Amino acid sequence: MRLGMVGLGRMGANMTTRLVHGGHEVVAYDVDLAAVEKAAATGAEGAVSLDDLVARLDAPRAVWMMVPAGDATRSTLDALARLLARGDVVIDGGNSHYTETVARAAALGEHGISLVDAGTSGGIWGLREGYCLMVGASEDDFARLEPVLATLAPPNGYARVGPPGSGHFVKMVHNGIEYALMQGYAEGLELLKSARWELDLAAITELWRHGSVIRSWLLDLAASALRRDPELEGVADYVEDSGEGRWTVQAALDSAVPAPTITLALFARFASRQDSSFAGKMLAALRQEFGGHAVRRADG
Amino acid sequence: MRLGMVGLGRMGANMTTRLVHGGHEVVAYDVDLAAVEKAAATGAEGAVSLDDLVARLDAPRAVWMMVPAGDATRSTLDALARLLARGDVVIDGGNSHYTETVARAAALGEHGISLVDAGTSGGIWGLREGYCLMVGASEDDFARLEPVLATLAPPNGYARVGPPGSGHFVKMVHNGIEYALMQGYAEGLELLKSARWELDLAAITELWRHGSVIRSWLLDLAASALRRDPELEGVADYVEDSGEGRWTVQAALDSAVPAPTITLALFARFASRQDSSFAGKMLAALRQEFGGHAVRRADG
Repeated sequence: MRLGMVGLGRMGANMTTRLVHGGHEVVAYDVDLAAVEKAAATGAEGAVSLDDLVARLDAPRAVWMMVPAGDATRSTLDALARLLARGDVVIDGGNSHYTETVARAAALGEHGISLVDAGTSGGIWGLREGYCLMVGASEDDFARLEPVLATLAPPNGYARVGPPGSGHFVKMVHNGIEYALMQGYAEGLELLKSARWELDLAAITELWRHGSVIRSWLLDLAASALRRDPELEGVADYVEDSGEGRWTVQAALDSAVPAPTITLALFARFASRQDSSFAGKMLAALRQEFGGHAVRRADG
Repeated sequence: MRLGMVGLGRMGANMTTRLVHGGHEVVAYDVDLAAVEKAAATGAEGAVSLDDLVARLDAPRAVWMMVPAGDATRSTLDALARLLARGDVVIDGGNSHYTETVARAAALGEHGISLVDAGTSGGIWGLREGYCLMVGASEDDFARLEPVLATLAPPNGYARVGPPGSGHFVKMVHNGIEYALMQGYAEGLELLKSARWELDLAAITELWRHGSVIRSWLLDLAASALRRDPELEGVADYVEDSGEGRWTVQAALDSAVPAPTITLALFARFASRQDSSFAGKMLAALRQEFGGHAVRRADG
C-alpha cells in the first residue's frame, strides 16, 4: 500500500527500506533533508515537508511516525492533526508513554483521525530479521494496516494486543523485562570473571547458545560482543536508560505490583553512571562515626 | 564408546537413550532396578549393582554419574573410588557444588582416577534437542570423552571450560542467571496482568517470540505454558529452588560481586513459599505502633 513515513533515523530509515523492498510505496520525510535524499535513493518518494508528505498521499491516508518519544512525537502529532482529515490514520511506532497515547487517540478521534500505536522491537537487526510489532488499534484500523505490518514483521511477528495505548504499554513492559534479562546475564558474567579460574567468557557464552536453558537472542549478542572484545576493554561501565525502564517501574508503583528485578536492573544503570555516589560516602562516614572504621580520603 | 551410566532418573535415563541411539554401548545401573530394566529395554546393558557395572567395563573405564547432588553423589563417588582403578574416569553430570568437585578431584587424583564434571543443561528437552555440557576436566580426559560429549550435546553444545570443578561452577552461574531471567519475565507478565486492559498473555508471549529483543527459549516455554492454561489456574504460586541459586548468591558473597537481580530472584522464590511472613506481620505491627494504622487481624 501507499503510506507516509515521518522520521528517517536509524529505525525509520531501515523500516522504509524494508517497506520499499516489500513492494509498498513510501513517501518519506525527515527534518534532516539529507536523510530524505538517502531514503529516496533506496526507492522511497522524498517529501520536503510534512505538508508535502500529506499532499502526496490520497485519502484515506496512513502516516507512520518513527520519531523520538516526547516533544518530537508531540509536535509531529500536533502538526499532523492539523494536516490530516477524517478517515486518516497515524501510526506512532516510537516509544511514547501509553497514557499519552490513550489521551492523544481520544483527542484525534474527535476529529475522525485514528491513532494506532505500534510498539516496535528489533533494533538495528530489524531491517534483516523483521520487527516485532505490538499494535494498539481498533480492529478496523488494524485490518487496514495489515499489509504494512506483515511486511515490517517476521512471520507471526505482529499482533493487535488491544485498543490504542495498549501497544505502547506492552512494548514498555517488554523493555522492562529486557532490563532484567540484561542485568541477569551481566551479573552472571561478572561472577564468572571473579572465579578462581581464568574462564573464557566468549567461549562460555557461545557454548550456552547451544542447548542451554538460558539461550536467547540477548545471549547471542553477548557472545558476539565478547568474541569481538573478550575483556570488553573498549566499553566503559556507563549505561544509559531511555525511559521505558523507568515507566515500567512507575507502572509497578501505580498498580502495586512487586517488580524487584526490573527495578534493580534500572537502578544498576543509574549506579553505573555515578563516578562517586553520595550514598557510598555517607555509608563510609557512618561506619567511621559508630565504629571508628577508617575512611578512604576523597581527592577533592 | 563403551561407558557406564549410574543413575537412571529423568536425566540419566534420557541421556542413556541418547547415547544408545548415538551408537555407544551403555552399561546402566540405578538403585531402582525397574529403571535398569527400562534402560535395558531401550538398548542399554543392565547392571544389578555398582560392582556389576564396573565389572562389565574394560579398563580404562569411563563411568557417567547422573545422581542427585549431595549425599547420593557423595556415597556413589565413595563406592566408585573403591571399585575403580588407576586410569579410570568418573563424570559427575549432576549439580554438585564446585568446591566439593575440586576437593574430590584432588582426592581421586591421588589414586590415579580422574574426576570430570559436566554441568548439564537442557532439562527434559535434552533427549530431543541435546544437552549443553559445561565440562571441567584435564585436556586429556576431555579428549578421551569427546565422542560421548558430542553425542549428548547439540552441535557446538559442549566445551571444556577449565580444570575439574570449573564445569560445575559455570553450570551454577548458568542457573543463577536462569533465576534472574525467569523472575524478569514473571514480573513483566504480572504487570501485563495488572493493566487497565484485559491483555491476552498467551498471544503476547507468542508475539514476542518473533523478532523481539526478549525472545528466548524460556519465553518459548512461557508462551507454551500460557497457551495451555492462559490464567495459570492449575499452577500454585509456590516455587522451589534446587540449591544452585543459593550457591550462586553465596559465590557473589564470597567474591564481593553485587548480584542484586539473581539474589532477589532467589528471595522471590522463598517469599512464594510463605503463606504468611513474620516480616509482613512485623511491618504491619510497626505501622500501628507509630501511626495508629489499623492492622488486619490474623485468624489464628
